[in-house]
Amino acid sequence: MMKTAGRLSNRRWRTPLLAAWLAALLPGSVLAVDPTWREVDPDNLVFMELHEGQVVIELNPVFAPKTVEQFRRLVQERFYDGLSFYRVIDGFVAQGGDGSDLGELSEVPLIKAEFERDVSPDLPFTPAQKPDLFAPETGFIDGFAAGRDPAAGKAWLTHCPGTMAMARNDDRDSSRTDFYIVIGQAPRYLDRNMNIFGRVVHGMEAVQKIQRGAAANNGIIRDETRASRIRSMRLGSDIPKPERLSAFVIDTDSPGFEQVLRDRRERRQRFFHQKPPQVLDVCQVPMTGRLTK
Amino acid sequence: MMKTAGRLSNRRWRTPLLAAWLAALLPGSVLAVDPTWREVDPDNLVFMELHEGQVVIELNPVFAPKTVEQFRRLVQERFYDGLSFYRVIDGFVAQGGDGSDLGELSEVPLIKAEFERDVSPDLPFTPAQKPDLFAPETGFIDGFAAGRDPAAGKAWLTHCPGTMAMARNDDRDSSRTDFYIVIGQAPRYLDRNMNIFGRVVHGMEAVQKIQRGAAANNGIIRDETRASRIRSMRLGSDIPKPERLSAFVIDTDSPGFEQVLRDRRERRQRFFHQKPPQVLDVCQVPMTGRLTK
Repeated sequence: MMKTAGRLSNRRWRTPLLAAWLAALLPGSVLAVDPTWREVDPDNLVFMELHEGQVVIELNPVFAPKTVEQFRRLVQERFYDGLSFYRVIDGFVAQGGDGSDLGELSEVPLIKAEFERDVSPDLPFTPAQKPDLFAPETGFIDGFAAGRDPAAGKAWLTHCPGTMAMARNDDRDSSRTDFYIVIGQAPRYLDRNMNIFGRVVHGMEAVQKIQRGAAANNGIIRDETRASRIRSMRLGSDIPKPERLSAFVIDTDSPGFEQVLRDRRERRQRFFHQKPPQVLDVCQVPMTGRLTK
Repeated sequence: MMKTAGRLSNRRWRTPLLAAWLAALLPGSVLAVDPTWREVDPDNLVFMELHEGQVVIELNPVFAPKTVEQFRRLVQERFYDGLSFYRVIDGFVAQGGDGSDLGELSEVPLIKAEFERDVSPDLPFTPAQKPDLFAPETGFIDGFAAGRDPAAGKAWLTHCPGTMAMARNDDRDSSRTDFYIVIGQAPRYLDRNMNIFGRVVHGMEAVQKIQRGAAANNGIIRDETRASRIRSMRLGSDIPKPERLSAFVIDTDSPGFEQVLRDRRERRQRFFHQKPPQVLDVCQVPMTGRLTK
């Protein structure tokens, strides 16, 4: 088969031709009912600059107050600037920091476990799935994917792609400085076992370009010159306002977002010849934020 | 906090310090009980060369005989060489081909839907999860993640990261040449609706580096000079034996693999302070293959 000029010029038709497939498969619902957006508090906003691109993180002090406090301080002390992602397993996590999980020589204190918190009426919860495979119920709390166990009165942030958490050793209170970002299929079995303290709201494509380590070597990148480096991390509120980007994320308490979830659960489009089960994977809802000057 | 030379030199301790965390979180089970491996039939092996790296694909003619037949022919005719990934949505799919989903000017025939097949006794099934959120049961059939509905007597390949399927329009029989690779959280709602015909068994880190399109533009990369290109695709059996790499994948019918699944379900390690529910996400089992000369 020849690729004639005529055939290639067909590309200008691409967009209309793809319309049905796109409308069917994509955040189609997002197109139909735009949810409202909220601005991320600059105190909870972190800009991480990599050679691979800019990564924007939203911190969650409601679920991990001590972890966020320590992480903010480390960012402000420029602890992470120049450090690398030294353990990166494709399909699992990219772990960055100084490599001293146990931090023998570090002056930085350990963080007490913040694996879950009590359910409380001031935590608005937009339901996604009940029961979920890994939790009695899942949903969204202020933009973050979360699990809940109403019987135990507990809520927790779930491990989804883009979730940021502190690494630790066997000891529950052993996180300190090094963190990981989930880059693969949600490792939900880690839920309620780690200090999840943030999520990537913009720039996951840069995170996906982070250099991987060899699986046989458990992802450790022994040659540090090959590792992806953190050029800088800055807290949003430390950047002078005229220079600062604003980050907007989907307001998961809005009726528009509830409609997004409903549309994704129901899949009314003609595209679906076999109607999918009316369930939702809380980690499979597109949540990418927007940046504006 | 200063990064003194002393502190950085601490890095040589990294590996022992991390041992506990690695053993706890990783295919730890794979270390304990190595499953057996099987060689991929060179007729089902495709080497896709990208600027981003080599991607190795295993085709599945048992579930998608017509799709595999057409894809093999297209590869052998060098149809894909020089074409690009023109629609790439981070967290969802990378779609490649000539961009003519409907193929108006193409001489290539349409493919009849191969969304699922009958369960049969010659399809050994290693169970993963029952019930799964998206299927009455999930498991592995000859290395591929699969769903089953025993009542309906049907089995199908599931959408997991690395899954390869044919794009189509609303019509069930409208796939032709363009394919997608899943690069994000498993879009399981597409199961039983697409011609899944293969999976990436090596090189997902290269797939993850594929240039993304703008989400606002539904992933379409309008500037084709920015798109990631397919340098070449070759069928394993078309490469002279002395030059050909062999691909080995986990034998999912082996007792070692059953043990891997058991270990991942039970999570006996001290690392887990909150014991995870004894469930498995069929898309969250590490399945990366090995290449040898």
